[in-house]
Amino acid sequence: METICVSPIGFVERDDSNVRDKDAVSRIVLDVNLVEALEGLDGFSHVFVIFWMHEVSESRRTRLKIYPRGRSDLPLVGVFSTRTSSRRNPIGLTLVELMDIRENVVFLKGLDAFDGTPVLDIKPYDRWDRELDAVVPDWWHQL
Amino acid sequence: METICVSPIGFVERDDSNVRDKDAVSRIVLDVNLVEALEGLDGFSHVFVIFWMHEVSESRRTRLKIYPRGRSDLPLVGVFSTRTSSRRNPIGLTLVELMDIRENVVFLKGLDAFDGTPVLDIKPYDRWDRELDAVVPDWWHQL
Repeated sequence: METICVSPIGFVERDDSNVRDKDAVSRIVLDVNLVEALEGLDGFSHVFVIFWMHEVSESRRTRLKIYPRGRSDLPLVGVFSTRTSSRRNPIGLTLVELMDIRENVVFLKGLDAFDGTPVLDIKPYDRWDRELDAVVPDWWHQL
Repeated sequence: METICVSPIGFVERDDSNVRDKDAVSRIVLDVNLVEALEGLDGFSHVFVIFWMHEVSESRRTRLKIYPRGRSDLPLVGVFSTRTSSRRNPIGLTLVELMDIRENVVFLKGLDAFDGTPVLDIKPYDRWDRELDAVVPDWWHQL
């Protein structure tokens, strides 16, 4: 299979390591050459952040099945059935609230990425990204 | 900035080129070595597909601002304020309906990716990917 290479558009900065805190505010410090590409983003309340989970080891990238959040009381499932970082391409995707933009720094609430994480893309969020009647499996409700 | 390299987990196959048809069914033909990683995915009704928009030229990747959908009656805005494929890292993100899985082939409704598109990741969709009160700018409503 071919190889695809990308460069980060910026990096996450945050003062805490509690990435599960949905109320924590973190920052994307964008490449200063890309500031113009942010113009108009402040009109959106929410954005998707696509990032590279750089701390995932090569061995974790080869896993095919896992117990969701390491819980062996739940079914052993394929990595594509979960949001685990242990996946072939450890690309993170999170919907976050856009708090502020100052020059090349974007302030976000709810980004579950560690300090230093390379950011690959920022996309505005709209209703076509939303599905009100989505179904999930029973084990998912136990997470 | 560092370079990050990924390999596709599979490729899009479709019999039409009408990627704007939300009812069109297309397929992801996954690397056969990754079939186990799909286990349990059939319990979800909707998934995100993250793909590589391989037909985007290098020059389009350098653009910072565009007219949304080429419409000069709308404001000239930064590429990160739009879903244009003309962006630094042309990574596509689409929420789709999961129709069926047969061996290494995943059948999806609503994927706006051309035949032959490399797929980077598949992620299950849940309510935390949903924001009911998202705000978008005025120009966005005119698209």
